This record gives sequence, C-alpha cells and structure tokens, in this order.
Amino acid sequence: MAAMDASPNDFTRRLTAVAAEAETVLEKLLGAAPLAGEIARPERLTAAMRHAVLGGGKRLRPFLVVESAALFGIARSGALLAGAALECLHCYSLIHDDLPAMDNDDVRRGRPTVHKAFDEATAILAGDALLTLAFDILSRSEVHPDATVRVALVLELARAAGLGGMVGGQMLDLAAEGRFAPKHALSETEIVTLQAMKTGALIGFACRAGAILGQAEAQARASIARYGNAIGQAFQIADDLLDVEGDAATLGKAAHKDAAAGKATLVTTLGVTGAHARLKVLVAQADAELAPFGPKADTLRAAARFVAERRS
Amino acid sequence: MAAMDASPNDFTRRLTAVAAEAETVLEKLLGAAPLAGEIARPERLTAAMRHAVLGGGKRLRPFLVVESAALFGIARSGALLAGAALECLHCYSLIHDDLPAMDNDDVRRGRPTVHKAFDEATAILAGDALLTLAFDILSRSEVHPDATVRVALVLELARAAGLGGMVGGQMLDLAAEGRFAPKHALSETEIVTLQAMKTGALIGFACRAGAILGQAEAQARASIARYGNAIGQAFQIADDLLDVEGDAATLGKAAHKDAAAGKATLVTTLGVTGAHARLKVLVAQADAELAPFGPKADTLRAAARFVAERRS
Repeated sequence: MAAMDASPNDFTRRLTAVAAEAETVLEKLLGAAPLAGEIARPERLTAAMRHAVLGGGKRLRPFLVVESAALFGIARSGALLAGAALECLHCYSLIHDDLPAMDNDDVRRGRPTVHKAFDEATAILAGDALLTLAFDILSRSEVHPDATVRVALVLELARAAGLGGMVGGQMLDLAAEGRFAPKHALSETEIVTLQAMKTGALIGFACRAGAILGQAEAQARASIARYGNAIGQAFQIADDLLDVEGDAATLGKAAHKDAAAGKATLVTTLGVTGAHARLKVLVAQADAELAPFGPKADTLRAAARFVAERRS
Repeated sequence: MAAMDASPNDFTRRLTAVAAEAETVLEKLLGAAPLAGEIARPERLTAAMRHAVLGGGKRLRPFLVVESAALFGIARSGALLAGAALECLHCYSLIHDDLPAMDNDDVRRGRPTVHKAFDEATAILAGDALLTLAFDILSRSEVHPDATVRVALVLELARAAGLGGMVGGQMLDLAAEGRFAPKHALSETEIVTLQAMKTGALIGFACRAGAILGQAEAQARASIARYGNAIGQAFQIADDLLDVEGDAATLGKAAHKDAAAGKATLVTTLGVTGAHARLKVLVAQADAELAPFGPKADTLRAAARFVAERRS
C-alpha cells in the first residue's frame, strides 16, 4: 500500500516552519542569563556559540525529531527541545571539524567559521560547551515528563555521537586521508561504515528520538530505526554528489574538497550514475519502512526524497 | 560536636583503594569492543582516550563521589561508575586545556600530553569522545536503578561542566591572560568566580553526586553542596600554591606557569601566607558542614585536609 506523498510545497512549508521554531528555541537556550547551577555565562563564549548555532542551517535534524515524534502523537514543544539539543550537538561537530588541525575550513553556512570569526581556543571551547549543552537540554523535564524517556535519549545520543559513532567516524575519516599511516584505498564496506558513523549515526538518532519520545513498541522503533539508516546513507551520498557537482556559492562551504583531498566516497566507488541509482534504492527502502504508519508518515516520506535530492 | 578524623593512614588507604577500583572500571569502559548502539571503536581514538585516562591521577573526583555516596548508604559499584564518568569528563578537560591553542602543555601526569603522544586532531577528538562518554555512562542503569536519579546526575554534571561552569571558567582564564583585550588586574571576586567555574564546579558536583545517588533530603544536599564549594576553593588555592612552591618533577606537569603567564590567583592577591590562612578557614568550613553527619563523615573530613595540604 503506497500512501500519497506530502506535496513538495507542503513539505517545504513544514520544514521552514520547524526551522523557524527551532531558531526561537535555540535563541532562548543561548541567552545571556545563567540558569540554576550555572555561575556565569562568559560573553565571548556565548557569542561564539550563538555564531555557530543561530541564523543558519536547514535544521534537518530537529525537523526529523519533530516529524518522527508526530507519528506517535507527541506534543511539538518537547520534540522541538530534543531537536534543539541535537542541533547544538551537530553544530559543535561542525565547529571542531572546521578547526585548522582537522579539516581547516574558513567558511561554513556562508559565514566565517568560529575559529576565523573568533579564534581557535574560543572555537574549541564553544564546541565543548555546545556538546555539553545538548545533554543538559535533553535531561530537562520539558522534553518529556518521564525520566526514563529522557535518560534513554541521553544514552542513545551519547552512543550515536561518541567513540563508536560520530566522533569515531571523524577519526576514521582523518585516517582515510592518510594522516597516520600510508594511505590505502577504502573498500565500499569501509566507506559505508565510516559514513554510518560520521553522518548516519546522528540522522538515525534524530529519527529514533521520535519513537523514544513516543514510547513506541519494539516493532515501530525498529521500522523507524531502519528508515533512519536509509536516509542517513542517502544524506551522505547526496553530500558527496554535491561535493562533485556543486559549487561553493550554493553550498555555503568549500566544494570539491573530497577530490582535492583524494577522499574516497561512494561516488568514487560507484561513479556519479551509480551513486544516483543507490540514492533511488535508499529512498525506496525508506518508503517501505514507513508503510505500517500509513498517510501520517507522508512528511517523513517527503523528507527521504528531500534528503536524496537536495541541491545544497 | 567534633567527630574524630579518620587517621591519615586510613585516609590514604581508602584513597588508594578507590583509585585502584576506578582504574579497573575505566579500563573496562575503554575496552576495544563496541557496545550496543556503537558501530565500531577506532583503534587510534580508543588508544588516545586510554592514554589520557588510564594509569595516572589521584582519582580525587571519583573518590569524592564514592565517599559522599557512602554517607547515604549507596552501593559502591554505582557510585564508582558515576565517579568514572566524572573522571572521563575531567580527563577530556585536561586534553583540551593542554592543546597548543589553549595552554600549550607538553607534559601531564609525567607523560606526554595527548597531542604530543598522538597529534592535535586526535587529541581534540579524544576529548570530545570522553566528554560524550561521561554522559553515556551516567545514563546507564548500573549507576542507579531509578531513572530520575540518573537524569539528575546528567543535568547537574552538564551544568557544572558547560558554558556556565568549567568550560566557561576556562574561557575566563584565557581572557584573564589578556588574549582578547588589554589585560586588567582581576579583583578577588573575579578570581573567585573564575576558579569556582574552572575547578570548583566539578569538585562540587563530585560531592553532590553522592547526595543525588542517595536521594538525600534538601538539608543534607545543601550541607554537602556547601562542603563541596569549600573544598573546591581549597583545591584551587592549593593548586596555585603548588605552582609557586612546587617543582615540575613532583607535580608531573610544568610549574611556575602562572607567574610566567602573569596570571592572577588568590596567591597573588592574598600572598603566600594569606593563601595558607584562607586554606585553614576553608577546611574549618568544610568540617562544619559535615557536623550533622557525625563520625561517618570522617573520610570526607580527611579529604578536605588532603585537598588543602597536598604536595602534588
């Protein structure tokens, strides 16, 4: 049974709406006044965190949290807050990845990266503080009244983001550049693992977060998790295609960096045509996983298409 | 009513015992095998995290968690795990503080710092992964069966460690060096705030963690919190005195760095004699806060003395 998709216009409207709401929530979270248990919020550090987080980004991860939570009838405010936590964590990873010792990028979302706009030490600390803030936010009762739900979000996010997830993926990515040992060509399996860690883990968490908030039963959780894996892979392939096909003005960051760094991606192993074909398969997989939810999953269906077909 | 102190030998024996147990727990936490929800643990990243965490340190923070939890009859295994989480977070802060863009230190605990033993990118990522791991650990059911307790630990640690706590304190410390604006002499109040954030917040959390685990009533929590503040301040003054009076061989890290950097500490504002006098006052305050707990708080009393009088 194939439900009708949300129209592209409807999808864009919903994505834009969540982005605006997430911005408001993030703006409030990064205010000047210290909270209970905080001693003071240093101005320079707060400013650097705001530079990294506010006024940019599609807010895809908060959107996925909100829309997956909506499947289970979860109130939008709690899901938005969880989404904002995830966005803080995502933005920390961008700050640290852009550092001179890492990918050494000067531009992000069309603006100077944090270490360019401020300095390296401030950028390291702003990243650290945003990562910490993500867990602060998730543990607040406004996210969900049930502490078992909040602690499950903390545990799953930590697993997705840490040594065995996103941070580990960045380590593998640096290793793949040949930094620590003579470079060898990565197999397709190695590339898939690296990307599942570096990008897929957080996108997968964004989708699963809705099922956790909704205290969904095991089967529904598993479907959403597989949906998340499919769009996580699709997201990365689309990203790699954009690096080949895109330009810096549209991307808001440097293009053709992978080729310049001789970085292996699925576009290298599958070719541009093969990568586009793989995207189609992944979108179909994502669709199939959503079948049990019927038409109320239309927005998530459209999200899979959006992730695969995005131009920036 | 003044209870008798634990004898110095008894105290040292207990501190050494917790350090050994914490080492075993940390060794296990930093194993090679990925956990549920992790995809793979990259070897180089795991090695860098182990380099930073294992085989060194007095484990003062885990000790304070274990001993404050013992006041409330909490099983040692859960408190040790919470203490290990805190130690991971503490070690992340050391890795990042030692980075070239931050304090640029080559030696820590008598060994090369992580960016010296590995490289800068690996050090940044190892810090990120340890910070993330701290929240992973705290949210595990082995820490405490009640999710409200675990989520309270996550929230309080995040507040103590983030923008308005430890990371913010490091930002203020860099600013005090005159990095971002012409240097001005810090007032005593500014120094106390900076140190309460940079060092005091985590030590305070270590003490409060026991009361959280023990689900202590408000009055006992408040006493332990004030005890934690007192020894947090004492810890930093002792540290600043060691920087003036100590040598690198005993400290396992560079000495006289504050004077070289022209860094204001309470030793600068109070003088060496004044700082020693302040330490005595803080130990007396710590003692007074423990009065309601009677003799079972003897180890925490001895801990206050240890923190104030330590030579390394």
